[in-house]
Amino acid sequence: MKLHKTASVSLKAKIGINVTVGPYTIIHDNVVIGDNVDIGAYCELGIPTPLGDGSALEIADNSLIRSHSVFYESSTFGHSLTTGHRVTVRENTVAGINFQIGTLTEIQGDCNIGDYVRFQSNVFVGKYTSIEDFVWVLPYVTFTNDPTPPSNMLIGCTIKKFATISANSTILPGVIVGENSLVAACSCVTKDVPEFKVVAGNPAKVLKSVQSVFLRDGSGRSAYPWVNHFSRGYPPGILDKYKK
Amino acid sequence: MKLHKTASVSLKAKIGINVTVGPYTIIHDNVVIGDNVDIGAYCELGIPTPLGDGSALEIADNSLIRSHSVFYESSTFGHSLTTGHRVTVRENTVAGINFQIGTLTEIQGDCNIGDYVRFQSNVFVGKYTSIEDFVWVLPYVTFTNDPTPPSNMLIGCTIKKFATISANSTILPGVIVGENSLVAACSCVTKDVPEFKVVAGNPAKVLKSVQSVFLRDGSGRSAYPWVNHFSRGYPPGILDKYKK
Amino acid sequence: MKLHKTASVSLKAKIGINVTVGPYTIIHDNVVIGDNVDIGAYCELGIPTPLGDGSALEIADNSLIRSHSVFYESSTFGHSLTTGHRVTVRENTVAGINFQIGTLTEIQGDCNIGDYVRFQSNVFVGKYTSIEDFVWVLPYVTFTNDPTPPSNMLIGCTIKKFATISANSTILPGVIVGENSLVAACSCVTKDVPEFKVVAGNPAKVLKSVQSVFLRDGSGRSAYPWVNHFSRGYPPGILDKYKK
Repeated sequence: MKLHKTASVSLKAKIGINVTVGPYTIIHDNVVIGDNVDIGAYCELGIPTPLGDGSALEIADNSLIRSHSVFYESSTFGHSLTTGHRVTVRENTVAGINFQIGTLTEIQGDCNIGDYVRFQSNVFVGKYTSIEDFVWVLPYVTFTNDPTPPSNMLIGCTIKKFATISANSTILPGVIVGENSLVAACSCVTKDVPEFKVVAGNPAKVLKSVQSVFLRDGSGRSAYPWVNHFSRGYPPGILDKYKK
Repeated sequence: MKLHKTASVSLKAKIGINVTVGPYTIIHDNVVIGDNVDIGAYCELGIPTPLGDGSALEIADNSLIRSHSVFYESSTFGHSLTTGHRVTVRENTVAGINFQIGTLTEIQGDCNIGDYVRFQSNVFVGKYTSIEDFVWVLPYVTFTNDPTPPSNMLIGCTIKKFATISANSTILPGVIVGENSLVAACSCVTKDVPEFKVVAGNPAKVLKSVQSVFLRDGSGRSAYPWVNHFSRGYPPGILDKYKK
Repeated sequence: MKLHKTASVSLKAKIGINVTVGPYTIIHDNVVIGDNVDIGAYCELGIPTPLGDGSALEIADNSLIRSHSVFYESSTFGHSLTTGHRVTVRENTVAGINFQIGTLTEIQGDCNIGDYVRFQSNVFVGKYTSIEDFVWVLPYVTFTNDPTPPSNMLIGCTIKKFATISANSTILPGVIVGENSLVAACSCVTKDVPEFKVVAGNPAKVLKSVQSVFLRDGSGRSAYPWVNHFSRGYPPGILDKYKK
């Protein structure tokens, strides 16, 4: 462990091999960190909370947590988690492998997140949100959960595989965004989005099929399903079986 | 006082009994903290500013300030303030009791905030905003103040009692949002909102009366005025006299 | 140098005269700081990155960086930079003099920013954005860059001189916002904005000429071009030659 002299790591925390802990970072008791994990400065990991189920904060191998980030206990992340700066993650969230969380993003807890999910900067994820594998979420997207705020009827959104939610869109409580769909920028999504469709506007309406959105590279190829042309940042071959 | 060994508290600051100050937190000279207050890590309280009126930052009893938060001098908070992480509060703001400020929320100063106000995450509160008692503000709401930016004619918004402003809405300068009204998600509110009305859209228009919005719990009851059915997080009995 | 006893400044960093470095702040090797610069607490400056060109982070004279901010290496700022709290700036960005960056704003890198630019709070600036001199950007504005996310065809926005982008607007990839134009609050700007025009809505449409927007001070004067009536925060005389 490469522990900065100013870092504070509980003796009760379980820390893997080749872990770096940055300056002024605090790791509380109820934390399990895998191997080859790099944690930046001014982070606080494993904050105790009575809202958790008592389980540890688990960060698996080969992860990178950037500075000023905060994670509570009782959430679990698969290997190769990468975060930006100042992310906040509350309790009872389970995320798969290769999750990327952008700077300033907040996950309020009790969420389910699949494998290879990409959140860019400043995404807000309300409690009970469910995100499937290979979803892309662009900056300033908000996943809400209270249909009549304030109430006790919180209903999370569900985002299906390979969907893309573009910048500054808001998904209303309980909405299901279909597989391989595209939510255009600045949409207010009040109803379920059919698979392979583009929606846009406030309230968002179906515009067309995703296949009729074309790449801007002059190739004349469809931009969606994106898996057919894009693979940057994924392990080699991992997307092959999803191509259509 | 449970002062973490790395915390730095000015000898000129007035600190109550049973106060906890977290790691690396800095409390400047011009600060008054009540009893039973818990302050997290990496906070800076009472930052001096020539824009203040010279008065202290006052945080009353039974408050909780979470990590990475910043408060300037010359603002006052009633008892039972609770903040998320990384809130920013500038000078000359006066807030009542039982105020909740969500993670990443910024209050730019010179604001008046009533009792029992709830700001969720990432709310932006421009200078001269006025918020009355029992208002709810959902994530990513923006209260603006300059009708012709940039100008010297800053005019704050006014949000009346028991109003709810839903996620990702923007309130334009000088707008008055009426008592017990509901601003739907993603609204751009350019005109005053009548009391007991729902507005939505860009620009926001009156849709209907709040009483015709129903709870999603199958009860057939109106969701608004919310005070008739919701009391989570308020002291017992405090809302009774407001029920209609 | 007024270095707080808990600050950590690399001996390889070049630091000017009369520089203040706040508590717990870290300055890495590849950093050049001018004279009369004030850096707040919990900042990290000059974070190494393989995405940079190897050049230093340069912060010129008379700058102020507020607490919890993060700057990577390989970006350059002219004199009199002022930031709010918790700003993030990645590599390969070049900014002119007298740049103001609001609290929570993120600049993702590879951006060009002119002189006297004003970003208010929580602005998101995607890679390859280009901002000319004297531009104003209000809170929660998003500059995007991927026309078909996710793709490899990133195309930055261009904002021309003296343009104003109002709160909670989103500028889509490759859009050019014309000189002296006004983007109204909550706009989703999908097409180029002509100079001296006001656009609003989702998608944004041209409403009228900027000269037909009037100040709210009863003077009957046009609010735009703003340079004709507003000079707060600029050095004396600097705007005179731009008046029309």
